[in-house]
Amino acid sequence: MDKIEIRFGQRVKEIRLKQNISQEELAFRCGLSKNYISDVERGTRNISLKSIEKIAEGFVINIKDLFEFK
Amino acid sequence: MDKIEIRFGQRVKEIRLKQNISQEELAFRCGLSKNYISDVERGTRNISLKSIEKIAEGFVINIKDLFEFK
Repeated sequence: MDKIEIRFGQRVKEIRLKQNISQEELAFRCGLSKNYISDVERGTRNISLKSIEKIAEGFVINIKDLFEFK
Repeated sequence: MDKIEIRFGQRVKEIRLKQNISQEELAFRCGLSKNYISDVERGTRNISLKSIEKIAEGFVINIKDLFEFK
């Protein structure tokens, strides 16, 4: 199984594409930088709980939905 | 609504008590320190994704179950 950062990043990208928004738009909604979102999606960030919450809020979903891995 | 660290910590404690294990036992299973688990339960840690995964593994549950907030 892939590392958790990779699986999480893939899930973020999947939801973002489903919502049809850019990394820039997601970053704006979350109050995070576009580079940070890019790093998260590529699985190169060990993201913190607070930032996980920001991403869920940016998507307007529950945090647990970010962990609905395939 | 409480801060995410508080809600997460309450959920960890709830699952730990349901599994009837001590903070020491959970810490041992996760490969984390007892003080770290204590901090997480009190909501004073902005825990990272990797450590969230360790706690889920310690409980033998899916990560998303850690975010089943009441």
